[in-house]
Amino acid sequence: MSEIRRLGENQRYADVISNGGVAYWVEVAEDPTASVHGQIAQVLAQIDATLKTLGADRRRLLQVLIYLSDLSDAPILNQLWDAWIIPGEAPVRACVQAGLWSSYKVEMVITAAAEVAACR
Amino acid sequence: MSEIRRLGENQRYADVISNGGVAYWVEVAEDPTASVHGQIAQVLAQIDATLKTLGADRRRLLQVLIYLSDLSDAPILNQLWDAWIIPGEAPVRACVQAGLWSSYKVEMVITAAAEVAACR
Amino acid sequence: MSEIRRLGENQRYADVISNGGVAYWVEVAEDPTASVHGQIAQVLAQIDATLKTLGADRRRLLQVLIYLSDLSDAPILNQLWDAWIIPGEAPVRACVQAGLWSSYKVEMVITAAAEVAACR
Repeated sequence: MSEIRRLGENQRYADVISNGGVAYWVEVAEDPTASVHGQIAQVLAQIDATLKTLGADRRRLLQVLIYLSDLSDAPILNQLWDAWIIPGEAPVRACVQAGLWSSYKVEMVITAAAEVAACR
Repeated sequence: MSEIRRLGENQRYADVISNGGVAYWVEVAEDPTASVHGQIAQVLAQIDATLKTLGADRRRLLQVLIYLSDLSDAPILNQLWDAWIIPGEAPVRACVQAGLWSSYKVEMVITAAAEVAACR
Repeated sequence: MSEIRRLGENQRYADVISNGGVAYWVEVAEDPTASVHGQIAQVLAQIDATLKTLGADRRRLLQVLIYLSDLSDAPILNQLWDAWIIPGEAPVRACVQAGLWSSYKVEMVITAAAEVAACR
């Protein structure tokens, strides 16, 4: 069976998991007290940091499913997102409104063509 | 690293992305002024068109995540969906209610066993 | 083209589909009249049963997207989930609130590193 590798396992979830050349993870803002602008900026920076840990970058993103707690925040998302995406290297994206835990304003579910390294 | 191929890239998202034999994309109706019946019919036709572009058909669908803006529209979805699926060749399907942008009534997130062609 | 295998196909969806070493499926409680605690316990047991059918176990889960009809049920989810996960072998997890059909309280979308057997 193919190898599964994890980063940051705890009792509830792995921070990142990879198998067969595909990495999966979920991001919410590390500081949920931040504004929606702050939370989205944090989540995008956290995605960059995770990609770097995987030896990858934004161009390896395949799919990003975005949940906003209030869809009227979509223009703020789009402003930050559009500046963040590398032209011609964008992933597939879906964005819907869903209820999020606590004061979270945004949650992103990420699939990327990347692997957790075998030896760390 | 495995090759990533895209169709229809713009600044915000790729229309379709593929990697390692799996294609990912998201569909909303091209005409968001249509009724829910019209939008669902459009989205299913758009999936067919995308699959054809990938040299595939409905039988290559793996997973479809369906967001309805109003879950009471599920019977309309099911009527159109059931007529569209090839018996014995259905994908996995989830359907939940979530807030959608503008006047969109349905959004589908698609995973298929298909590839964007290398040379076009 | 890579082989697609299904378990439990009907006119609307496959119970499980696999391709290229990855299996996809969706679980809701077999008894939607159960309490939220009962439904979550059922869904986790159903995941175990599906994994067993695939010749796998919880350690092969890659990603679980959880939809709760009421996010205030998250503590019940977490209590059952945390006891169910094998320490150090957890998948990636997202959990949001979305509208669910009928009296369903929870729906889970599962991705696992597993295959439907070729010969059954």
